[in-house]
Amino acid sequence: MSCPFAKTDRTQPNRSPKRVSFEREPVFAVIDEAPICHVGFTLPNGQPFVIPTIHARVDHLLYFHGSTQSRLLMAIASGNPICCTFTFLDGIVAARSAMHHSMNYRSVVAFGTGYLLEDEAERQEAFRLTVEKLIPGRWENCRQPNEAEAKATAIAALRIEEATLKVRSGPPSDIASDMDSAHWAGVLPMQTVYGAPIPDPQLPNGLSVPPHIQALV
Amino acid sequence: MSCPFAKTDRTQPNRSPKRVSFEREPVFAVIDEAPICHVGFTLPNGQPFVIPTIHARVDHLLYFHGSTQSRLLMAIASGNPICCTFTFLDGIVAARSAMHHSMNYRSVVAFGTGYLLEDEAERQEAFRLTVEKLIPGRWENCRQPNEAEAKATAIAALRIEEATLKVRSGPPSDIASDMDSAHWAGVLPMQTVYGAPIPDPQLPNGLSVPPHIQALV
Repeated sequence: MSCPFAKTDRTQPNRSPKRVSFEREPVFAVIDEAPICHVGFTLPNGQPFVIPTIHARVDHLLYFHGSTQSRLLMAIASGNPICCTFTFLDGIVAARSAMHHSMNYRSVVAFGTGYLLEDEAERQEAFRLTVEKLIPGRWENCRQPNEAEAKATAIAALRIEEATLKVRSGPPSDIASDMDSAHWAGVLPMQTVYGAPIPDPQLPNGLSVPPHIQALV
Repeated sequence: MSCPFAKTDRTQPNRSPKRVSFEREPVFAVIDEAPICHVGFTLPNGQPFVIPTIHARVDHLLYFHGSTQSRLLMAIASGNPICCTFTFLDGIVAARSAMHHSMNYRSVVAFGTGYLLEDEAERQEAFRLTVEKLIPGRWENCRQPNEAEAKATAIAALRIEEATLKVRSGPPSDIASDMDSAHWAGVLPMQTVYGAPIPDPQLPNGLSVPPHIQALV
């Protein structure tokens, strides 16, 4: 049993507190299921940026990799405050009233600060975790990085200091006086699905889709 | 023919310039297709926030609505710099080398500043556009806002000053010496699909799914 994330000025909801959770397990579950996140950072001139990227997580560390030239990687590693948001859309909520139209969603907002990984073993492990997060079983089924590739890759870690999960689910929240309305109301469920794998046109003949790829579909 | 968005320090790519477009039409197409965006803003203490929300667009204006208590709405309306990012994931790219694993995606990063809408007719029109963006045809098929609801709703507009579209598509970009590798390589296509509409359990009997909802599935 781990204790929940702290409620602070950054994470205290000002509305709909019943939709918000500070518990670690459900927060981590959304982070681990999300294929990407949106990383927010601010330049010294005050300009915010929001950039989508892939990630991996171990305990309270998020790993990100990119070119050593990447503005995103350098921003994460700067030690300045970062916000990292993971979002699933689960449906469109059609309410009887215009006012109560909404989305069903799960969204984690995580705050932390980052640094560049320097230790070669830790860098290699973070690289492995990122590939494995994208496609479980892939690391042993691809060519692992050579020295030049490892050198050209920056890997940043972000310590999650605070995080919240906000969830909306279920039917619309119409007011009592609208319940007898003749307007249809309900939810249009949404989900992300994978199609059949598209082999690289330059694959050698006879190379069939391996089990670790097939397992994703 | 409209001219492209400006290339500035904010939008100039430092890598992969061939993936980046400054043209307005493809930028607007991604914004209009995206069901939500991730809005980035920075508090005066330097803390960035990234919050998912729904939007609507007319020309260079993005509209957002929320409670008059919403931190997000107040941040958008503050006049401080905002970054708004719209992302589609189109596939997982399994390369022969660990290094070249990637995602296929389309992502618009838009920069601008916002303000609160005050004019009642403009506010009502922005409200209508947001509902229509979520579910085309819905505005005339739900109860429109009454005076109290309109008062409780803040609507902010964000002027898009600069924006870029970044796209990755197609097979992995492996290096020549890996092309004869025995590792399978290719793309796992992803898409978001809608399931069958789930009627609100409290709907009156005999209210069937209307055409404007059925049209989304």
